[in-house]
Amino acid sequence: MEKRTAFFISDGTGITAETLGHSLLTQFEQVSFEQVALPYVNTPEKARETVERINACADAQPLLFTTLINPEIRAIITSSKGLLLDFLTTFLEPLEKTLKMKSSHRIGRMHGAQDYQTYKTRIDAVNYALNNDDGANIHNYEQADLIVIGVSRCGKTPTCLYLALQFGVFVANYPFTEDDMDHLRLPSFLQPHRAKLFGLDIDPQHLQSVRQERRPNSPYAELGQCQKEIRKVKGLFEAEQIPTVNTTGRSIEELSTIILSRMNLKRRLF
Amino acid sequence: MEKRTAFFISDGTGITAETLGHSLLTQFEQVSFEQVALPYVNTPEKARETVERINACADAQPLLFTTLINPEIRAIITSSKGLLLDFLTTFLEPLEKTLKMKSSHRIGRMHGAQDYQTYKTRIDAVNYALNNDDGANIHNYEQADLIVIGVSRCGKTPTCLYLALQFGVFVANYPFTEDDMDHLRLPSFLQPHRAKLFGLDIDPQHLQSVRQERRPNSPYAELGQCQKEIRKVKGLFEAEQIPTVNTTGRSIEELSTIILSRMNLKRRLF
Repeated sequence: MEKRTAFFISDGTGITAETLGHSLLTQFEQVSFEQVALPYVNTPEKARETVERINACADAQPLLFTTLINPEIRAIITSSKGLLLDFLTTFLEPLEKTLKMKSSHRIGRMHGAQDYQTYKTRIDAVNYALNNDDGANIHNYEQADLIVIGVSRCGKTPTCLYLALQFGVFVANYPFTEDDMDHLRLPSFLQPHRAKLFGLDIDPQHLQSVRQERRPNSPYAELGQCQKEIRKVKGLFEAEQIPTVNTTGRSIEELSTIILSRMNLKRRLF
Repeated sequence: MEKRTAFFISDGTGITAETLGHSLLTQFEQVSFEQVALPYVNTPEKARETVERINACADAQPLLFTTLINPEIRAIITSSKGLLLDFLTTFLEPLEKTLKMKSSHRIGRMHGAQDYQTYKTRIDAVNYALNNDDGANIHNYEQADLIVIGVSRCGKTPTCLYLALQFGVFVANYPFTEDDMDHLRLPSFLQPHRAKLFGLDIDPQHLQSVRQERRPNSPYAELGQCQKEIRKVKGLFEAEQIPTVNTTGRSIEELSTIILSRMNLKRRLF
């Protein structure tokens, strides 16, 4: 198998360079890539050390996935033997042309220090999600942008944490449990917040395997129990016209973006 | 102020297109951008609807920030009047050239459904972080990749949740409280896990403002109290040679990548 070294180089966290670069590399399955993350290359000295590291590499042409805005750093990295694939600067030229102006060439602020308000929005959203997880506080829903509902272990908590941490959305979640099943209805404290409700659905077999992991061989993890809870909760979602998505086989990013788009919510953080 | 419409178009979640596109737009402060997220453009029909929407736009040339791999969808979007800035396909040609092979042109898997193992790693890491938050379980540190320590409200919880959710790292956190301050030392249950410890530092003024928000005008939020706790805990970090980072003014992404890099940990998720 052919081998090639791929560097992810950034003057910041390198998260985007790594995410996008990794995605491009998966397009070339016949190559074995040695992947090296080099974040915080933010001084000419560090850039020169990076060039030495690239040039010391046995490959004819290492791959350099970068998000570099600073022209000085970028020029130093360009002087290496690697193939520069820059996710930011590549697009500045066509943008400058269509907008008929120069870009400010400020260091990428993608994941950098943010103003206090942005920081606070994020921390407040995370605290809200933690304090209002799993029905922990049913008197706090005025503040919510969104209330995610569904059976135990259908994916509510990780989805809500992602929405809070990455998008700054104020999101609570409330579970329907075994005890609710015989006379399942929308609890009175959720009724005034009906427009904020979003339901998570899940395939019974998948729910069973997740619950089995959690409490092996319990009644809770029996397929019949999973099927019953899901059937009842789906009936409630339909009767109450609550929008839903099936979590089976979907990533947390997919669920989060589907929910935002269906609920007409916008991300507060980038 | 000049106005321009920017579309973020993806056959998946569009998270990367939006993050990178947003970062590029911040380089042009003199323009007011109307930003429109269009995720899940994954059929020719949806692509044609998107083209209609782009062409109906009053701008001469709307900006299209995209992550599109599917050549059919991409061709339809290209037929619009917008300026295509594709963060993936742009780099496939130089990669194909240097690797001397064709790419597989599979739909981007950046944030798509993942194999069960990846999914499970993520959920397990999130559950581990939640169950081992704020010293909740001191008998569970064998499993940890990392244990984050510091004073109350220095940023431990959001940083740990990010490390779990985005990178799949198993991370616990443990707080030093007022009661520990008089005879501050490394607790016996942390000593066997010394190599996993990472300390969070914070500026006293910043800590005060965060605590003031939490418990206004309490002794806990007094500047003197914040100064004292930080001084003692910093002394402990130094005496025990525990690596640290100051959280003041740093984003959660910055803190997470700095910690990973200093602790020689690798992300398990992309």
